[in-house]
Amino acid sequence: MKWFEQAEVDKNIVISSRVRLARNLDKFAFPYRLNPAMAKEVLQEVCEAVSGLENRLDFMELTSTPPWESNVLYERHLISRHMAEKTLPCGIAYGEGENLSIMINEEDHIRIQAVFEGNNLEAAYKKAMEADNALGQDLDYAFDGDFGFLTSCPTNTGTGLRASYMLHIPFLESTGMLKAQAEMLTKTGFAIRGAHGEGSSPRGGIYQISNQITLGKSEDEIITAIQRLVEQIADKEAHLRTQLTKDLNAEVMDAIWRAHGILANCRKIALDEAMKLLSDIRLGIMMGILPPPMGGHTIYSIMTNIQDATLQAITMPADDARHLEILRADYLRQCFNRPL
Amino acid sequence: MKWFEQAEVDKNIVISSRVRLARNLDKFAFPYRLNPAMAKEVLQEVCEAVSGLENRLDFMELTSTPPWESNVLYERHLISRHMAEKTLPCGIAYGEGENLSIMINEEDHIRIQAVFEGNNLEAAYKKAMEADNALGQDLDYAFDGDFGFLTSCPTNTGTGLRASYMLHIPFLESTGMLKAQAEMLTKTGFAIRGAHGEGSSPRGGIYQISNQITLGKSEDEIITAIQRLVEQIADKEAHLRTQLTKDLNAEVMDAIWRAHGILANCRKIALDEAMKLLSDIRLGIMMGILPPPMGGHTIYSIMTNIQDATLQAITMPADDARHLEILRADYLRQCFNRPL
Repeated sequence: MKWFEQAEVDKNIVISSRVRLARNLDKFAFPYRLNPAMAKEVLQEVCEAVSGLENRLDFMELTSTPPWESNVLYERHLISRHMAEKTLPCGIAYGEGENLSIMINEEDHIRIQAVFEGNNLEAAYKKAMEADNALGQDLDYAFDGDFGFLTSCPTNTGTGLRASYMLHIPFLESTGMLKAQAEMLTKTGFAIRGAHGEGSSPRGGIYQISNQITLGKSEDEIITAIQRLVEQIADKEAHLRTQLTKDLNAEVMDAIWRAHGILANCRKIALDEAMKLLSDIRLGIMMGILPPPMGGHTIYSIMTNIQDATLQAITMPADDARHLEILRADYLRQCFNRPL
Repeated sequence: MKWFEQAEVDKNIVISSRVRLARNLDKFAFPYRLNPAMAKEVLQEVCEAVSGLENRLDFMELTSTPPWESNVLYERHLISRHMAEKTLPCGIAYGEGENLSIMINEEDHIRIQAVFEGNNLEAAYKKAMEADNALGQDLDYAFDGDFGFLTSCPTNTGTGLRASYMLHIPFLESTGMLKAQAEMLTKTGFAIRGAHGEGSSPRGGIYQISNQITLGKSEDEIITAIQRLVEQIADKEAHLRTQLTKDLNAEVMDAIWRAHGILANCRKIALDEAMKLLSDIRLGIMMGILPPPMGGHTIYSIMTNIQDATLQAITMPADDARHLEILRADYLRQCFNRPL
């Protein structure tokens, strides 16, 4: 079972906790400066080290992957948008549950990612560090006594660590309070963005919060600071929810049940609308009004599965956007169409 | 079973066919000039004649009726808005199936109404004329050899006959073609209006078409002319439906199924939105996509039952508009919430 299929991902405001470590090999130029032959060498060397890990990871070379397949990996947060568009030899290794994944020749030679359902940043950190330590025994990392780990982009230099949380905060969004919150976060070295990080537009009230500064801070300091911050944001969202669902009971119930009624019956639906309705249903599940979806799905896994590329992969190739909206509706009906 | 509960009312574009005859007693002033004592006399005299009819009609005096009860009769098309607001002694007599009803002391002393489900103006005409003939044996009508039946408003003088159809024409409406049609109708002595005639705003694609001129025409001429006209309009609507549902299959299916999903799940709903969704569901039933509603309801009977006063009468008194929207949603869910 994949981490996003665990019931835990629908239980609270915090959907998942993620740690990413950026590492580079000492004897190669950074990826931006690699030629194809050198990139291939990096790929081989890292792959070998990865195959020695205790966690069995499946490797996939992305150089000749068709775009739709890269996009599936992108939508599942296994690779970055940047990597989906790459032409140099690069690849991704990931385990069955998708808790641990390693990108090779993205912006850095190595990007170790660990992600867990719910509020569990320490588990993610532990998992990522274990992989890092194991790889570090086989590979020679680019490391400087003063700066720490060296990376392509200076914002990652130091610990090379980015910690991030995926949050479902529809009330902070709809009340407009998120805007002020985002400005405050930026000033204190954090960023709040759509689910796919930089440049992605938020959908369905899902946001990613991550640290922006790693240099001059220890791993523990970064982890503790973002944990505290996310706790505060989740508290604010929970407070808003209690306040707003108390005063507007019929309105809230109506939105939740209509969302169910539409998803269980629609025949075509755009991604934005579907994400908004899934957000309402997720609220309904958290509030104990609706049962979880059918077929062992979680709302978050459905949110992933109805993205364009994943949807095509799990249904069948579609040739235009209108067709995709029909496939999306077909898929969603299967998740929700039952008597309640 | 009432006429609007017959399955026939959901089968086609024509919902119902109605004939109304305006009559006055010779020896009394017209209602606008009656004092309460005289109005009472008219009421008694007509009531007596009505009680001798072959059709058993229940009589209800409206003078002391609470507004919500008058409004229920208005929403069911048994009395006019004018009559719901009257203070002079007046009343309504109607049979069990509500095919035949007689208003006393509305704009005229007597207004005989006969209505049948579907396209059946001749049955309505026959029914109204039978009652008229029977009453005419007991009562002395105001009649002039040159003008015909005399009425309060000159537009009714002559035959005193108004023939009308209730139509469901959502495609003529949504394509904007209805506007040109309405102008043409007005020029040729007909009117197209909301379901409650003059001054009522159309909801759910339901329109009433009636003749405006009775003087100088025979009953047969009026009946034939409006029959032919309505046939043409229904043909245009059917043609549009075929055209538009062929080209936009997913869109049409989507609208129909979403309408079902929302009505089967909503927790509060305004009248306008509910009427629009019921219109989509009625389309779905006509097109064989959806089964009829549960509990032996027809869409048209549900459209009647969710009007404010009727809704309060069949559920329980509500004190504000918001509460009514919740009651309306509760009622609609009962009509549609089943696995499909």
